[in-house]
Amino acid sequence: MLRKKTKKIKVGNIFIGGDAPISIQSMTNTDTNDINKTVDQIKELIQAGCEIIRVAVPNMKAAQKLSKIKKQINIPLVADIHFSAEIALEAIKQGVDKLRLNPGNINSEEKIKKIVSACQEKNIPIRIGINAGSLEKEILEKHTHKASAQAMVASAEKHIKILEKHHFYNIIISLKASDIERTVEAYKILSKKVDYPMHIGITEAGTFLRGTILSSIGLGYLLYEGIGDTIRVSLTADPIEEIKVAKEILKALNLRKKGITITSCPTCGRTEIDLIKLTQEVENALKDNPKNIHVAVMGCVVNGPGEAREADLAIIGGKKVGLITKHGKIIKKVPEKNLLSEFLKEVEKYEDNN
Amino acid sequence: MLRKKTKKIKVGNIFIGGDAPISIQSMTNTDTNDINKTVDQIKELIQAGCEIIRVAVPNMKAAQKLSKIKKQINIPLVADIHFSAEIALEAIKQGVDKLRLNPGNINSEEKIKKIVSACQEKNIPIRIGINAGSLEKEILEKHTHKASAQAMVASAEKHIKILEKHHFYNIIISLKASDIERTVEAYKILSKKVDYPMHIGITEAGTFLRGTILSSIGLGYLLYEGIGDTIRVSLTADPIEEIKVAKEILKALNLRKKGITITSCPTCGRTEIDLIKLTQEVENALKDNPKNIHVAVMGCVVNGPGEAREADLAIIGGKKVGLITKHGKIIKKVPEKNLLSEFLKEVEKYEDNN
Repeated sequence: MLRKKTKKIKVGNIFIGGDAPISIQSMTNTDTNDINKTVDQIKELIQAGCEIIRVAVPNMKAAQKLSKIKKQINIPLVADIHFSAEIALEAIKQGVDKLRLNPGNINSEEKIKKIVSACQEKNIPIRIGINAGSLEKEILEKHTHKASAQAMVASAEKHIKILEKHHFYNIIISLKASDIERTVEAYKILSKKVDYPMHIGITEAGTFLRGTILSSIGLGYLLYEGIGDTIRVSLTADPIEEIKVAKEILKALNLRKKGITITSCPTCGRTEIDLIKLTQEVENALKDNPKNIHVAVMGCVVNGPGEAREADLAIIGGKKVGLITKHGKIIKKVPEKNLLSEFLKEVEKYEDNN
Repeated sequence: MLRKKTKKIKVGNIFIGGDAPISIQSMTNTDTNDINKTVDQIKELIQAGCEIIRVAVPNMKAAQKLSKIKKQINIPLVADIHFSAEIALEAIKQGVDKLRLNPGNINSEEKIKKIVSACQEKNIPIRIGINAGSLEKEILEKHTHKASAQAMVASAEKHIKILEKHHFYNIIISLKASDIERTVEAYKILSKKVDYPMHIGITEAGTFLRGTILSSIGLGYLLYEGIGDTIRVSLTADPIEEIKVAKEILKALNLRKKGITITSCPTCGRTEIDLIKLTQEVENALKDNPKNIHVAVMGCVVNGPGEAREADLAIIGGKKVGLITKHGKIIKKVPEKNLLSEFLKEVEKYEDNN
C-alpha cells in the first residue's frame, strides 16, 4: 500500500494531496439559502469528523450567502457550481476555499478566463468533478455512446486542458460512477497520466448498507492501490453517516490511527458469554476515547489467545467468566458480570502507563 | 475482474471453485448440542440467502447430533473441528458434507490417515483454515515471531503437504487475519502457488459497521483481483447480518445479479423531495422482488437524467413532483405523494413486458 505522490494543494486551512493526510469530506443537504440550517448541519458534520464541506450553490441568492456561512465554520468551504460563471465568480468573491466546477460547462472562453483569474488571485483550487451520469454529448459520441471509464477519463482530460491552457494547475480531480468497476478503472487510468490530487468516491451509491459496501469496496480498492487524497462517501442517508463510514474506511486501512481499534470474533457454537452485547458495550464505552489502543473481544479459547497476543488489551470469554490479557499475558480472571467494568479499568490504567 | 480458475470441488449438493458461482456461507452461534435451536437458526439463514452452513463441533456429544441436523436442512453442512481425530471421524460418519480441519493439529500420523481415508471414501473435502491468531509455534519461530502473511502461507503449505502426502487433493483453503493487509497479501501469495479453491474472509472483523467495512474492503479487493470461490463475512452480530452483507458485496461487484439494484444519489442542497424516505420506501417495496432490474432514485435534474439513462426505470425528483423514466425516456410526471405507488406500478409492468 504505497500512496501515489500527487501535487500538494492548499484548500483553506488544510492541504489535499502530496503528504497531507487523506481528508474526509461531505456535502450539506440543507437549502444553502438557509444560513442557520446550513451552518448547524456543517457544525454537526465537523463534530462527527468532517474536514472539508461542500454546499450546492444552485442560484445567485445562495452564492451571496456563502461568506456568512464561511464565517461561522472552521473547515474549508467548497462551492458546488454547475453551469453559471456568474455564480462561480460570486462564490469566489464570497471567499469560498475551493470550487467544484467543470470549466467545459461554461460556454464562453471569456468567462472561463475570468473565473481562472479570480481563482489564481485568491489561490483557490478547482475540482473537476466527472460524473459518468452527466458526460458531455461529444464525449459519449466518441465512445460508442457508452459512459465507460475511458469516456470519463477523456472528459476529465478535456476539462484539465481548458484550465491548463490558462496556466491554471491548482486542480483536483474526481471520476465518479455509480458502480465500482468503472470508477476504479477510471481513477487507475487517469492516475497514471496526471499527478493532480484525486478526490475519490462512488456516486449515487445507494442507501446506508448498499452504499457503505459499494463505497468500502471501491474506495478501499483505490486506497489500497495508493490512489486517493480526499474521500467522499455518498449515501442516501444523513450525511453524518457518510462521515462515520469514511472514518472507518480510513481506519480499516490503517490510514488513520486515532481512537480505539476493536477486534472481535463472530459468534459461534463455542461462545459461552454474551459476546455481541459485551462487544457493543466495550465499543460504546470507548467510542470517544482518543488514544490509539488495539483492543480484542474474543468469545472462546480457540482463537482467543492468538488474537489477544496481537492486541494491547483483550477479553477472552469462557463459561460465565472471562480472562483479561495485556499484550497476550493473562492479568485477571473475572466473572462475566464484572467483565466490562474491570476491563474498562484496565483500559484506563493502560493509558496512564503508556 | 477475471476470476482465477481453481479446482472445482463438490460439497454436498453444490460446488466450490472452478466455474461454480461464488457461494455465501455462515456459521451458527447456537449450541450445536441443541438440535432444534441449531436447525431453526440454519433455516433462518437459508431464508436470508446462506448457501453453506458451518457448525462448531466442540465435543463428541455435539458430533453425534450432526446427522439429525443434516436431515432437516437442504444446504451443505460443515463440521468445524479443532484438535480431535475422534470427533472428526464421528462427524464424517454422521454424514457432514465438509470438514474444517487443520491436519497438523492432529498429533498422530495414524489418525490423520484414518480421517483422510474416511473423507476419500465419502468424497468429503477438507478446508484448511489458517487463522493468523492461531499459527503454530514452529511457524512463528521461523518468521521472527510475527504472524505475517508469509507465516500464514507457510502454515497453509504445511497442512496442504500433510494431506497431499496421503494423496488427498479435495482441499479448500482459507487464510484469515483480522486486518485487511495481511489477509489480502496472504491470499495473493498462496493463489499464485496453488489452484485449490479459496474460502475468503476477514476474521474477527468486529461489530456490524466496522466488520461490514473491513469485510467489504478485504473481500472486495480479493474478488476484484479474481480471488475467492466462497465467502464468509464475520461479524460480531446476528449471523443473518453476515448473509446480508455477503450478498451485497457480491452484488456490488456484479458477481450476483439476482434482485433489484437500486442506484440513488446522496442528498444535497439541490434536493427538493424527501429522497431518503422515498429511496427507503422503494427499497423496502422491492426487496424481495426476484427480477433483475436496475432502478435509480435521483434527487434532482443535474445528475438525474444521466443516471436514469443507465437504469431500467428511474425516478427523478423535482419540486413536489417527480418524473418517472424508462431507459432514460420520461414516461410520466407525477405529484410527490403518488410517486411511490406510480413507480411500483411501472416496475410491475416492466416485468410483465420483459
